[in-house]
Amino acid sequence: MVVRAAVAGASGYAGGELLRLLLGHPEVEIGALTGHANAGQPLGALQPQLGPLADRVLAPTSAESLAGHDVVFLALPHGQSGALAAQLGDETLVIDCGADFRLSDAADWERFYGSPHAGTWPYGLPELPGARDALKGARRVAVPGCYPTAVTLALFPAYAARLVEPEAVVVAASGTSGAGRSLKTHLLGSEVMGSMSPYGVGGTHRHTPEMIQNLSGVAGERVSVSFTPTLAPMPRGILATCSAVARPGVTAARLRETYERALAAEPFVRLLPEGQWPSTAAVAGSNAVAVQVALDEAAGRVIAISAVDNLTKGTAGGAVQSMNLALGLPEELGLSTIGVAP
Amino acid sequence: MVVRAAVAGASGYAGGELLRLLLGHPEVEIGALTGHANAGQPLGALQPQLGPLADRVLAPTSAESLAGHDVVFLALPHGQSGALAAQLGDETLVIDCGADFRLSDAADWERFYGSPHAGTWPYGLPELPGARDALKGARRVAVPGCYPTAVTLALFPAYAARLVEPEAVVVAASGTSGAGRSLKTHLLGSEVMGSMSPYGVGGTHRHTPEMIQNLSGVAGERVSVSFTPTLAPMPRGILATCSAVARPGVTAARLRETYERALAAEPFVRLLPEGQWPSTAAVAGSNAVAVQVALDEAAGRVIAISAVDNLTKGTAGGAVQSMNLALGLPEELGLSTIGVAP
Amino acid sequence: MVVRAAVAGASGYAGGELLRLLLGHPEVEIGALTGHANAGQPLGALQPQLGPLADRVLAPTSAESLAGHDVVFLALPHGQSGALAAQLGDETLVIDCGADFRLSDAADWERFYGSPHAGTWPYGLPELPGARDALKGARRVAVPGCYPTAVTLALFPAYAARLVEPEAVVVAASGTSGAGRSLKTHLLGSEVMGSMSPYGVGGTHRHTPEMIQNLSGVAGERVSVSFTPTLAPMPRGILATCSAVARPGVTAARLRETYERALAAEPFVRLLPEGQWPSTAAVAGSNAVAVQVALDEAAGRVIAISAVDNLTKGTAGGAVQSMNLALGLPEELGLSTIGVAP
Amino acid sequence: MVVRAAVAGASGYAGGELLRLLLGHPEVEIGALTGHANAGQPLGALQPQLGPLADRVLAPTSAESLAGHDVVFLALPHGQSGALAAQLGDETLVIDCGADFRLSDAADWERFYGSPHAGTWPYGLPELPGARDALKGARRVAVPGCYPTAVTLALFPAYAARLVEPEAVVVAASGTSGAGRSLKTHLLGSEVMGSMSPYGVGGTHRHTPEMIQNLSGVAGERVSVSFTPTLAPMPRGILATCSAVARPGVTAARLRETYERALAAEPFVRLLPEGQWPSTAAVAGSNAVAVQVALDEAAGRVIAISAVDNLTKGTAGGAVQSMNLALGLPEELGLSTIGVAP
Repeated sequence: MVVRAAVAGASGYAGGELLRLLLGHPEVEIGALTGHANAGQPLGALQPQLGPLADRVLAPTSAESLAGHDVVFLALPHGQSGALAAQLGDETLVIDCGADFRLSDAADWERFYGSPHAGTWPYGLPELPGARDALKGARRVAVPGCYPTAVTLALFPAYAARLVEPEAVVVAASGTSGAGRSLKTHLLGSEVMGSMSPYGVGGTHRHTPEMIQNLSGVAGERVSVSFTPTLAPMPRGILATCSAVARPGVTAARLRETYERALAAEPFVRLLPEGQWPSTAAVAGSNAVAVQVALDEAAGRVIAISAVDNLTKGTAGGAVQSMNLALGLPEELGLSTIGVAP
Repeated sequence: MVVRAAVAGASGYAGGELLRLLLGHPEVEIGALTGHANAGQPLGALQPQLGPLADRVLAPTSAESLAGHDVVFLALPHGQSGALAAQLGDETLVIDCGADFRLSDAADWERFYGSPHAGTWPYGLPELPGARDALKGARRVAVPGCYPTAVTLALFPAYAARLVEPEAVVVAASGTSGAGRSLKTHLLGSEVMGSMSPYGVGGTHRHTPEMIQNLSGVAGERVSVSFTPTLAPMPRGILATCSAVARPGVTAARLRETYERALAAEPFVRLLPEGQWPSTAAVAGSNAVAVQVALDEAAGRVIAISAVDNLTKGTAGGAVQSMNLALGLPEELGLSTIGVAP
Repeated sequence: MVVRAAVAGASGYAGGELLRLLLGHPEVEIGALTGHANAGQPLGALQPQLGPLADRVLAPTSAESLAGHDVVFLALPHGQSGALAAQLGDETLVIDCGADFRLSDAADWERFYGSPHAGTWPYGLPELPGARDALKGARRVAVPGCYPTAVTLALFPAYAARLVEPEAVVVAASGTSGAGRSLKTHLLGSEVMGSMSPYGVGGTHRHTPEMIQNLSGVAGERVSVSFTPTLAPMPRGILATCSAVARPGVTAARLRETYERALAAEPFVRLLPEGQWPSTAAVAGSNAVAVQVALDEAAGRVIAISAVDNLTKGTAGGAVQSMNLALGLPEELGLSTIGVAP
Repeated sequence: MVVRAAVAGASGYAGGELLRLLLGHPEVEIGALTGHANAGQPLGALQPQLGPLADRVLAPTSAESLAGHDVVFLALPHGQSGALAAQLGDETLVIDCGADFRLSDAADWERFYGSPHAGTWPYGLPELPGARDALKGARRVAVPGCYPTAVTLALFPAYAARLVEPEAVVVAASGTSGAGRSLKTHLLGSEVMGSMSPYGVGGTHRHTPEMIQNLSGVAGERVSVSFTPTLAPMPRGILATCSAVARPGVTAARLRETYERALAAEPFVRLLPEGQWPSTAAVAGSNAVAVQVALDEAAGRVIAISAVDNLTKGTAGGAVQSMNLALGLPEELGLSTIGVAP
């Protein structure tokens, strides 16, 4: 089986990471690469790490360029996927790394994104109860946001087993690539090195309703999420520190056992041995998710912490994992759980 | 007035920062510098940034070396300050940057530090209601921990005004200098660069009871704190993201007004204009504290975030500020609110 | 004496550093602050580290805004200083942090900058033989480039004493603030963290003729410089590794002695003890220059290495040092030799 | 073909990188993992990025542990490989990542390493003229040092074609993992972040004679190398800036053509398009080498710059490449030329 794949948005960080993974995927042949402002340029000038594709020239992003592929990955700014996908036939698997088709609630979408709701596609987080089956054979996939990936995988076992109250508090630190390759002063190296800073505080970050959707679905009741993202002085990685009030009778042993059971069969999620905590370095460049959990008896809270690479499992790796499922390939094909450290 | 000051523990990060500040203090003359393993070495080999003191040689840390000074700063490992301070007369101002005399509850001390309680000294956080008066004329000062400094200054206005429930959730990111200059594998540059990782999770970090003590004192009731510290890939700085359930009737306007009133007179704490958030870079190398606060109405929580330099306001700057108060000097003398950025 | 100072270009990195230093200068009162794209904005939104000036609003950069000051610092893009300075009377001390008035050879200027030569002002590197006298009482000063500052101070003693051949090889690493606050993809934090990369290779960097001018002047013959700048993953600092063929008969002892003699009286330059090497961290945020020198007998070369903070001694600190000299103030006033480390 | 491989020194950075690569090698089965101080510990506690091997326990490093493998990789401190290798039969391929068998000149070895010379093994830099053939079928391989790898690949085409004079000047910046996982104060994150610093200046670094050996062999005459290594604030990567006096008649066109011809057939070395310069980020985590070259006509020098990942091509990747050649496998098997960026 040879899968011919196109990448729209090949000059950004998500596009570059998709290509890095697709180059190592044994069943994929890389087809069209497209860009907007960078159309006409050789990829080597934009993504110097992708040596084997250095001489490939970016086509303009359009339905014409993307036609005739088995899979089309969209790594575009929010709001641009819908119109393009509509022009790609149902025989094409379309995997959207943007937000457009993640939320099922149109009002949530409109409140947070300020535009009409485009619809809802199967959600590319196979580890979320129910999601894996929906991905098998799908022709459209909405790749989760990077923060929702980290937060959902840290907390869903606790919510699925009703160990915690439905008010979660999340503080997450992200590497700067999560903000994309856009030219903004606060993303300059001079500004970010040596600095931690929050943004989107107070429930305003667009990933908040996605986390609520995921956790509420698992919990069977409305879960609120107080989410504070912070920008960390590193290029990649998310560390999500999540907590919620422990329900009466929850013990450390029961908590551990619940997480062990929930995560045991997952190929990419690793519950660390007791006493060992996740670090973003240990999952850098890989599709692995490291999780650890603890009960703070004095404060009465369950603390669940996860680390992911925002570009790999948080975006491009999650997209490839979903592609494998949609196409009936082995879920782990072309994906690694081995981090590049130190 | 010339104040003759000694620094015990001059080869560590806290000691180096104390000397950096004391060199710029117009009323201080630097006397004895002491070390343990490094006694006999010139300071220039250990603290190359302190050019003017490069040729000073470290004496061994002992009561003899430290005798005859107006002020003695102790920047020693926990547990070593008590015996030394007992040998320094009451005419000497002793300022302990360690934890030994911070906690008033002996049981808390013993549970978290595993040794007998040495006592309680006036607490060197002038901004904490009541603390400034206790520091005036004091001969013994316990400098707060770096995390408690950041967290207390972010949350005390909300607790003093009873705007939030007594269960706080804190996730703080610290630069690596907070862990001291000790040789541990996880502190190597190769391990920390590019990585965020938590430690002391689940209520086990020693700064937890100190935060509880400060906030409970202000709130007039027992406040619990769920505290998760994380290690960030930067040498300096703490960003503390703190939250608690908003009490009924709390509005964004009332929250803002409460913080404005509580912090207006503080020379080192700056409540940022609405919409601007703290960053550790903006306070690096300074005694400034940047604070911002928001109400997340959907999640029903108050979010208060502060940034400090862990070595300056979080340790050595706080120590000098307390010295000024204890000696009757202007509180701001020798201290800057201007960060070194970018 | 109160010196009223204006800063044109207050929103950039050089402008911010000038203000940080001027705020700590005992004889300076800060007057107009101007910007171009940012005129009308409060400084606190642009330079959050400058708390005391947070509410000051930027005026447009113009002769009107800058009139009526004792000193005007220009921190503008190359090519903009000449016209502005011509409108400021000779009673005003104008200190240009740009390149416009650094080179004495018009052909060099035109080849490297591609515009007509504006002229030559007294050169703000007091340590360069002859320069200090020219600065006393000057009304116009050209602040050296950051790389020429580091390289000249590393090599001039060797050239002044004719210890080396007139072909220098320089490889220098600079923090990203040296590239200014401009929005360019290769300056994004995601691109620079974890990466070293060269630029301006092969003699094309604009600071090359300035180095040649300085060293040739000292050597009394034409010195060629092979200069390779590299971008390092840090916000501040330059480490300049310079070498040249040792002339016959040069010994390590004579080399050391030459440097000791040449640098002994300099308040800001420190020849490190033998065996200790400069680091940019040790001079960060200070006006200090750390220098060390060695003779590689096998390769027959003298190696001279210097570290400076590109924004302080390399730009704003050098500017203030020159201001002090021009105004007859003590040369060291308001400047520190103590680095902010770690 | 299944190759059973053991790694001695599995707890260090080189050992970890070897395992990362071997886990992805289609013909390798990982056998014994050994350590010294860490024997008895699970690998997951030491190398958390190697999830699939987390439960493997380190055996003590000894001939017994390492017996019965097709390949044994030695990632040990200098001086420990000889005795161990002598106990491993000739049927075992032994690949030494240490320095013990790199130098052919016993006097050089003794001067730089201070111990008796152990011998000389085939040199694991296939790109060096003559080296590839010697590696085919070899049972012993000396993996080059990381700096010599970068420097040799930057300069050998110029020396092979006699375009430059036999005095090279090299300044190289290395990530901190090049210094290994040893506990030294100057390697702490707090010290290295934000800092560039030189070390081993003046011809004293142990990699100097290895560079001289390689370049002299290619040039057919004794080449001197003035080598200055610097420590850069990043975990991985080497950027080597190399130059030498251009011989009369050398033009930019001839230089380019020489490099194109010399490197065209190399699977891992990429001469970048004109105008594009190497960065360590673009080769991070890969076995790729990026090279660019320029002629500085004013200074009369050829500048050649290379970037490698010190742990991959500079150590473990080079080792695997040599293993492939020694065993008759395709040279590129299990190795990637795609960097992990940003």
